[in-house]
This record gives sequence, C-alpha cells and structure tokens, in this order.
Amino acid sequence: MDEPRFSGYVEELDYFLRHVSAIVRQRGRSILSDFDITPPQFNALIQLRDGRNLTMGELCEKLFLASSTVTDLIDRMEKNGLVERVRDPEDRRAIRLKVTDKGRDIVKRVMAARHVYLTAIMDKVVTGERENLLVALKHLYNLMQEEAPGK
Amino acid sequence: MDEPRFSGYVEELDYFLRHVSAIVRQRGRSILSDFDITPPQFNALIQLRDGRNLTMGELCEKLFLASSTVTDLIDRMEKNGLVERVRDPEDRRAIRLKVTDKGRDIVKRVMAARHVYLTAIMDKVVTGERENLLVALKHLYNLMQEEAPGK
Repeated sequence: MDEPRFSGYVEELDYFLRHVSAIVRQRGRSILSDFDITPPQFNALIQLRDGRNLTMGELCEKLFLASSTVTDLIDRMEKNGLVERVRDPEDRRAIRLKVTDKGRDIVKRVMAARHVYLTAIMDKVVTGERENLLVALKHLYNLMQEEAPGK
Repeated sequence: MDEPRFSGYVEELDYFLRHVSAIVRQRGRSILSDFDITPPQFNALIQLRDGRNLTMGELCEKLFLASSTVTDLIDRMEKNGLVERVRDPEDRRAIRLKVTDKGRDIVKRVMAARHVYLTAIMDKVVTGERENLLVALKHLYNLMQEEAPGK
C-alpha cells in the first residue's frame, strides 16, 4: 500500500473503530438503565469480579478515576448492596472490596441482556461470515494489546 | 451452528467487542490528556463539529447527558475558548453552540495523534489482511446500526 492510500485506510479504520465502540457503549448504557445501575458502577463491578477483591487504590487504577470519585461510587454501591468493604485476612489494616451475591446476579443478568442483543444481530449473518467477524475482531484485539502503552 | 455453539460464539464476540471498545476508549483518553481536554469535552466538540451548531437541548440528546451537566461542560469549554454561544440568525431567541478555530484545531491534532497510533499498529499487518479487518469492522458497524434502538 502506498502512503496516501495507507493514510486513508487508517482514517477509515479509526472512523469505524470509534463508531462501533460508541454503539457498544450506548447499547451497554441503555441495557444498564433497565437494571438501575450506572455505567461506572457496572465497570467497577466487572473489575472487582475479575480482580478478586481489589483495594480502593487498585480499583482507582483500573478505572482511571480519582480516589474521591471512587470513594463516592463505592459508598453508593455499598448502600445499594452491590459490594461490601471487608478486611484483608492477610493484612488486617487493608480493606478490600467484595462483590455481593446481588452484585454478581446483576452482572449475570446484564450480560444475558447483552447476549440477547448480539444474538439478534448475529442471527442475520451466515455461519461462515460469523466466523470471519470473530476472527477479525480477535486479530484487532491482539494487535491493540501488543501496542498497549507501557509495553 | 447449533444452539450451544451459537451461544458460546455470542459470548466470545461480546467479550472482544467490549475489550476492543475499552482499548479504543482508554487510548483515546490517554491521547486527550496530552491536549488538556477531557473525554466529555472532546465528545461535545465532535458532536458540535458534525452537527452544525446544535442548541444545548440537541447537544444533551447527542451526549446522553443531563442539561445541568452539559451547561457546566459548555461553560468550561467557552472559558477555554473551544466553543462559543451564538444567536441563531433565523431565530433570535435560540442560542446555538459553535466550535471556535481553537476547538477545530484541537480536534484535528487529536485525530492526527490517533492516526499515528493506528498507523503503528497496522504497519505490522500485511496488505490483504488490513482489508479483511476493515471489511469485517464495516460489516459489524452496519449490522449494529440496523439493530439500533428506535429502528
């Protein structure tokens, strides 16, 4: 590919990446609104579920949010019964955040709603093409992971 | 594809969609931090640039944000010289939001920085595969657009 064509390609790729991401986010947001939970709360639940009881500091890093913002977020989530603050059994001074059963249940139900949406989309696509889409998306993900800052 | 396989496929697709979107967002955020502008400010600039001088109400809808949040956002952006409030020449009671030259310049420079990042990624990919990735992403975008709520 010569340079001007490559630059046009990159612009187009960026356009579709931004717009697919925007739809994923927008759709995610509209699903969350049915479950009475905000996007930052859901992101925190996902991080805490995947990250095995993070500390507040660890959660701030994962969410790229300031400590005061995350304190407010967790206060509200604890009040709604989605997470609880527990003492670390190995270091009694440290407080860790734990997802409650109610929190886990909401994650499951939100994921199920997302899958209903994607199933409706993919139902229209023939099997071979489904595989192409997944392979391409995995490839993009791997390329982006390799280029992640700090590597 | 039989049902259990299809459901596994949808889960995997959702996983990669969420993770690619997260990287796109995270990368976008890290680029913006070099330009002293926040993600909501940048989203507002993009909407105003594409939407030809929206009103506050129109911008709230596009950003899915409450009117008080958008008022604060625009106040800060006006103070930083990124947008200005102008009277609609066809309806003197209506105020429209206009991107300033400084605002347009920042959008251009942010886009250029994103393209540098994507160029570095795509440089490693052979030409034919680049085309496959773009075609797959366009296809996904079109499928998601057709399934958009309200259609």
